[in-house]
Amino acid sequence: MDLAHISELLGWDQQVYMPPAAAEGRGQQLATINTIAHKKFTSPEIGRLLDDLKPWAENLDADSDEYRLIKVTAREYDKRTRIPADYVAEFARVTAVAQQTWMEAREKSDFSLFRPHLEKIVELNHRYISFFPPADHPYDVLLDNFEPGMKTAEVKAIFEALRPQQVELLHAIAARPQVDDSFLRLDYDEQAQWDFGVEAATAFGYDWNRGRQDKSTHPFTQSIGIDDVRITTRFEKDLGASAFFSTAHEAGHALYEQGISHNWSRTPLEGGASLAIHESQSRMWENIVGRSLPFWEHFYPRFQVLFPSQLGNVSLQDFYKGINKVESSLIRVEADEATYNLHVMLRLELEIEMVENKIAIKDLPEAWNARMKNYLGITPSTDAQGVLQDIHWSGGMFGYFSTYALGNLISAQLWETCRAAHPSLDDQIRRGDFSSLLTWLRENIHQHGRKYEPQELVLRVTGSSIDPAPYVRYLKNKYSDIYSL
Amino acid sequence: MDLAHISELLGWDQQVYMPPAAAEGRGQQLATINTIAHKKFTSPEIGRLLDDLKPWAENLDADSDEYRLIKVTAREYDKRTRIPADYVAEFARVTAVAQQTWMEAREKSDFSLFRPHLEKIVELNHRYISFFPPADHPYDVLLDNFEPGMKTAEVKAIFEALRPQQVELLHAIAARPQVDDSFLRLDYDEQAQWDFGVEAATAFGYDWNRGRQDKSTHPFTQSIGIDDVRITTRFEKDLGASAFFSTAHEAGHALYEQGISHNWSRTPLEGGASLAIHESQSRMWENIVGRSLPFWEHFYPRFQVLFPSQLGNVSLQDFYKGINKVESSLIRVEADEATYNLHVMLRLELEIEMVENKIAIKDLPEAWNARMKNYLGITPSTDAQGVLQDIHWSGGMFGYFSTYALGNLISAQLWETCRAAHPSLDDQIRRGDFSSLLTWLRENIHQHGRKYEPQELVLRVTGSSIDPAPYVRYLKNKYSDIYSL
Repeated sequence: MDLAHISELLGWDQQVYMPPAAAEGRGQQLATINTIAHKKFTSPEIGRLLDDLKPWAENLDADSDEYRLIKVTAREYDKRTRIPADYVAEFARVTAVAQQTWMEAREKSDFSLFRPHLEKIVELNHRYISFFPPADHPYDVLLDNFEPGMKTAEVKAIFEALRPQQVELLHAIAARPQVDDSFLRLDYDEQAQWDFGVEAATAFGYDWNRGRQDKSTHPFTQSIGIDDVRITTRFEKDLGASAFFSTAHEAGHALYEQGISHNWSRTPLEGGASLAIHESQSRMWENIVGRSLPFWEHFYPRFQVLFPSQLGNVSLQDFYKGINKVESSLIRVEADEATYNLHVMLRLELEIEMVENKIAIKDLPEAWNARMKNYLGITPSTDAQGVLQDIHWSGGMFGYFSTYALGNLISAQLWETCRAAHPSLDDQIRRGDFSSLLTWLRENIHQHGRKYEPQELVLRVTGSSIDPAPYVRYLKNKYSDIYSL
Repeated sequence: MDLAHISELLGWDQQVYMPPAAAEGRGQQLATINTIAHKKFTSPEIGRLLDDLKPWAENLDADSDEYRLIKVTAREYDKRTRIPADYVAEFARVTAVAQQTWMEAREKSDFSLFRPHLEKIVELNHRYISFFPPADHPYDVLLDNFEPGMKTAEVKAIFEALRPQQVELLHAIAARPQVDDSFLRLDYDEQAQWDFGVEAATAFGYDWNRGRQDKSTHPFTQSIGIDDVRITTRFEKDLGASAFFSTAHEAGHALYEQGISHNWSRTPLEGGASLAIHESQSRMWENIVGRSLPFWEHFYPRFQVLFPSQLGNVSLQDFYKGINKVESSLIRVEADEATYNLHVMLRLELEIEMVENKIAIKDLPEAWNARMKNYLGITPSTDAQGVLQDIHWSGGMFGYFSTYALGNLISAQLWETCRAAHPSLDDQIRRGDFSSLLTWLRENIHQHGRKYEPQELVLRVTGSSIDPAPYVRYLKNKYSDIYSL
């Protein structure tokens, strides 16, 4: 776990502060440390220890910490012993250079720079799949790394159920007069944006003594241990509150990591249950809280003080509508809640096609743009605003994207459950008090770390498996108000 | 070497960006990675490889790269196989927490917080010495880690020869009217100080593509590989050019590390020949260049533009005299060239007494203050300005300080040699052109890395062993002008 944390720091530094010419050396460092960590965790000694423990664990309560620690470790060991050390080293080396090149390609909006790296990464993912027994779908193997137990067919089914309802809502909104958000598209001072994000994250309960915030091209959260959980943010020109929403999102991830029980420190149960559970936290703080009327009833006066010339004459209601404007847009991380999942579906489909070898990497920008046109009715004018916008592929992360949409669904499920337990939740938030929400999340989600599998956790807490209905209810309720549907 | 570089990054982060509560976890991470690096380098496999290579190396030219690589690696192996892995881990753990505590103790100016940590560190140094055969003096074992081959008796002898000449010069200066530096003790904008440091380091030839500058409590240079050499600086209130001199000093270290041949990348010959050689580079750029009249003939107009209200009415000559004012002061890193070595002698003596168990750690602040009074005629009013001012002891670095003074001596030896080869050096610097100096240093010092031992290197380049005479000549020449001696 120490080696894993060190590797996280190398990755954080690479994206935040590392000088450009250090990319090759960093790739070598990551390859070395990941190889050592992999060899240590997959060593026969760990296998023997697990074999010794398993008979003992069988007599334990299946809900006990010890039982779960052994179970999760054994599962991880079984999985990772399938991956050769030289593959791990090559993966680290290739993705370190690919990430650096991606940054350059994105800056120059030149996909051709990134293309050979992505080709290598797809090849590596094919090799990865080959280490496992045949699954229902080869993509299952990749999905399982981010969402343990989830199948390609299941995700597709959830999305099939969700899509028509989101499209119906989108059409209903499009038939109504558009809200005005021109006041957001002015020059907002970076430092004031930064300060507001810090104030909000502090109010949420983010512990600065155990974390920090920096700037990066793509915002992310990195946990270098339960007591060192760092977030980053970025500033979008002419998008007034974007840095706040970025900070709120990453703070949501970070609150999860900071809330994990110290009992799990430096054990395989440290970390989030899955990416979807993680995303349920980030999207809850970013959207369900951060784009809610109760939140802004408390914070809008302060926001107006920071940006008097932009917002002095904008009412709370108009501001609330502006930050919740529904409109097809190019960048996933800036997309509104009504269109976001369509961005995810596009990526999921392209990933599956890459894994199925049904698309050549050189054709990816075109396929991306065609699908953007199909789903959202718009076409990126540059690759930086299209296929190059996300860091995930450069980091080798295939199987990741659908967890964003699953996270949205889970966030609404958790929210409904929490609000049932705390009927005055909205009133508390209206007073800038997030303690009931955070305490509830700490108790029901955060503290457990990876003790429970994601579907099991959702079931334990909400009494239901992953279900799109609460999210659709949440969207309909919100936009009925804003667009007078 | 990758693990060593990673450990360097952990150390850099710890001093620059790490959240406070992460100290304990960082200690564990450093212990883990340093233990692994130590075990790998001291493994019997490396011993066997070296044994296989030694007969082959005997037929090589003693000046060849291969011969030296094997020799230095074997020396290092021999040394490090004496140190048990658990000692390395404990050392890393203790010093990680000690450094964090030192920062807090320094901030609160409370030595009692730091005392138990320093006691542990002295104990650890005693244990370290016990791993080696008895030396002429136990302190020799520690000194050898920073200045290979140097003996306690030799350093003492050089200092004995130097001290009366510096004292004589100091008395001569004290008899003359003091120069005015009140214009430096005004409020100098941090950002403008930062900008000037960046401009100067760029002119020196520091490669920002392979490095970066950040802020830290105590300025330092960290090499995370030849292509990732980072510096830090700090700002002293009411000391106008302090950030520039800090940056120039660290840039001197960094130019050395950036100038090492890529042939030595990820080999034991990467790095500086010794700390004194390293310090000869930093002190050359900080003092011999950075406090020289030719340097300011070029840069002073720019500096005046940055600080018009402070310096608009100060002539170049008065500024030059001001930045070279000789005066007993409390902080080593801010001390002038005529008093600096006295700060070093004080620390060397206290370290030797700690190693000889002649002083209890609890008595250290008092002993420090008494010696400050004796040597420099002044007494710190707080421990932050006294015994807590340097980071070295908190990092476990005993044997380090005397290399600062040796570096001063070597810097003047190299400078005389370089100027003999380039008689127009001053004129070039007057034009802001440092290329001849940097090229000469790259060729004669930097590229070699650790290929030559320090005394051998000085002899090769200057034709003389370490000699105080050029430094004394340099000081007398400079201060005769400034103080009309």
